[in-house]
Amino acid sequence: MDPLEERFAKLGVDNAPGQEVRQENETLELRGEPLPGTPVDFSHGDVDAFEPIPGSLDEFVAGVHSGGAQAYTEYRGKEAVRDDLARKISAFTGTEISADSQLIITPGTQGALFLAMGSLIGHGDKVAIVEPDYFANRKIAQFLDADVVPVFMDHFAPETRAGIDLTRLEAVFRDGVKLFLFSNPNNPTGAIYSPAEISAIASLAKQYGVAVIADQLYSRQVFEKRTYVHLCAAAEQPEQVITIMGPSKTESLSGYRLGVAFGSEQIITRMEKLQAIVSLRAGGYSQAVLSSWFNEPDGWMEERITAHQRIRDDLLALLNQAEGMKARATEAGSYLFVTIPELVVPIEHFVKILRIQANVTVTPGTEFGSRFTREFRINFSQDHTAAVDAMKRTINLIERYRR
Amino acid sequence: MDPLEERFAKLGVDNAPGQEVRQENETLELRGEPLPGTPVDFSHGDVDAFEPIPGSLDEFVAGVHSGGAQAYTEYRGKEAVRDDLARKISAFTGTEISADSQLIITPGTQGALFLAMGSLIGHGDKVAIVEPDYFANRKIAQFLDADVVPVFMDHFAPETRAGIDLTRLEAVFRDGVKLFLFSNPNNPTGAIYSPAEISAIASLAKQYGVAVIADQLYSRQVFEKRTYVHLCAAAEQPEQVITIMGPSKTESLSGYRLGVAFGSEQIITRMEKLQAIVSLRAGGYSQAVLSSWFNEPDGWMEERITAHQRIRDDLLALLNQAEGMKARATEAGSYLFVTIPELVVPIEHFVKILRIQANVTVTPGTEFGSRFTREFRINFSQDHTAAVDAMKRTINLIERYRR
Repeated sequence: MDPLEERFAKLGVDNAPGQEVRQENETLELRGEPLPGTPVDFSHGDVDAFEPIPGSLDEFVAGVHSGGAQAYTEYRGKEAVRDDLARKISAFTGTEISADSQLIITPGTQGALFLAMGSLIGHGDKVAIVEPDYFANRKIAQFLDADVVPVFMDHFAPETRAGIDLTRLEAVFRDGVKLFLFSNPNNPTGAIYSPAEISAIASLAKQYGVAVIADQLYSRQVFEKRTYVHLCAAAEQPEQVITIMGPSKTESLSGYRLGVAFGSEQIITRMEKLQAIVSLRAGGYSQAVLSSWFNEPDGWMEERITAHQRIRDDLLALLNQAEGMKARATEAGSYLFVTIPELVVPIEHFVKILRIQANVTVTPGTEFGSRFTREFRINFSQDHTAAVDAMKRTINLIERYRR
Repeated sequence: MDPLEERFAKLGVDNAPGQEVRQENETLELRGEPLPGTPVDFSHGDVDAFEPIPGSLDEFVAGVHSGGAQAYTEYRGKEAVRDDLARKISAFTGTEISADSQLIITPGTQGALFLAMGSLIGHGDKVAIVEPDYFANRKIAQFLDADVVPVFMDHFAPETRAGIDLTRLEAVFRDGVKLFLFSNPNNPTGAIYSPAEISAIASLAKQYGVAVIADQLYSRQVFEKRTYVHLCAAAEQPEQVITIMGPSKTESLSGYRLGVAFGSEQIITRMEKLQAIVSLRAGGYSQAVLSSWFNEPDGWMEERITAHQRIRDDLLALLNQAEGMKARATEAGSYLFVTIPELVVPIEHFVKILRIQANVTVTPGTEFGSRFTREFRINFSQDHTAAVDAMKRTINLIERYRR
């Protein structure tokens, strides 16, 4: 096979969130009657249930009216916007970020992730990626022709830690890994890395000279005021660290495609060079919306976190009653990674059946690592009642297919 | 040198349009007094002088109000938007484009170019690129580790053709080129490829099985009702052709970051897989703005074209009076590629001096091919009076540095 053909054959997107409409439904075994109810798409958050930051559209409109200066920014983003962001994110993370040299605005955090990985690894380089972790990580590595070295995480480890296998992490670092990439809170499990785990990652990275990308997309939505340590603040070699954040999740600004990466000046410089050929810049007018981020009305963020925590609790209560189902309680973010009993159909079929029979969309566990054949991920940032009802239908359907 | 370090060392952006603010000014030889005047940035069009399509912001706002369905589209773009685009672009190009399988919406045409090239070439593949042509083409090839094979174009060839060297094109096709990439109208010269040239490209591509990317970003702004042939309509093997367009230039919608690629189903499928890991999708709300494209108020486009033609004529008249300066008259688009006399400073220095002394920004010819050391490119989509005055200052400054 042509190497490019092989590369793209591996880059499947049919099960990626939002792409379900493109699936062709091969012969599926449909058991019993459809389960009616409000459709719920758990593959991503519902920005109609949790609306964008108040005033964000006004900032966009003002951006358009300010004209050419907002439409054509530097590739790394408009200076005034970077100044504001650097100040706000420095305060949030407890670090000192230079707006001029250590921060870049990107089209979504997906954009930031691609640029950061593209700046750090190429043909034959080894990249350590946690399993389970965000599915695009492995796909980007494949496209860049890098070798993925998995590092497992036991997400049912005691709640005091995320469960990363630090012995394995050191072994693969010793073995020549160039880049380590992880999400914190972990996507899909919602686990927060403990201070001891972060500290171990920071010191191993320094010891073995490994670059680190920390995807902290959901780091503002922390439940029960848990301790959250930013790797960039703990890093022993901060010039080897890039942190990624964005307002697409908790803040529901996904439609504006905004992300930000900050940290190492050298890596940010490369990322800007790459952005220049990949998409030029994050949408100029959209950049104006970033003034509303970390600048939400009083109490807005607390209320949002509380509302999500209530949904999490109701879903967990349902799951824990169902035989053979379990999930780690989300510590931050809006994901639950649900383990289900063994079924008579493969997980990829089950998620299609679930969509057809119950109008519920979930993401199969296999997107997060090939061994997750009895898991699916949900994003519970949804209408509360609809989410609870959709989980009931899901449990009901699981009963029909239990082995 | 580490291969990645080498790759990024080549990927310079300091002279790229819009990036001039990041230049450090080494010791430059400043001759004479500053030339005061309204600052003009010829590196890109001025969307304050030529405003976005009327009503485009309203479409965006309506998109935001329609909520989640507009924020989270398929990676290739929202179905209803693709339906509308496929209909409009089929009519424009005289082809039949399937909205479902042959079209993808991207973050700008830059995004489309990266995805198309990333889908067609990898490590060690040969890609034929015209010289002069858009600077990012060569940079993307470098990032993808492909080998660039230049094909020269004599842009001072008789006006009945663009001037591409077809003998050389056939030779490099025969020699194993996998992809041919060209802009039509040519960026930076504004030349339109003649029907005979397009037909030759189509038949050579078929004969040697070469994929073709046609960048037609400026193809709506054709002067003097010249004949413009779309390669996709002339192609003998249309499943090997991708065409790129977008509303960022003539229509001044650059701030929304929108582009579109259409053609080969197989290549579009790959591009979507790649988009899924590069930036997910073109901004969801921005996609709504595409309804205003190819749907401008009556007479709006004609008026815009006439206004640009007048600016072109006035600038050309000035150039032609200046000794040792010349440019091909733009046939389509807003670029002029200006040849200047030999100076006592290199072109890269001259463009910096021009910015400092005369508040005029142009793009050095070397961005379009290393041999263009006596050329610069301007985008004359500017305030008419300011553009004429800026060109006078430029000519004045050239006099000071003439060898």
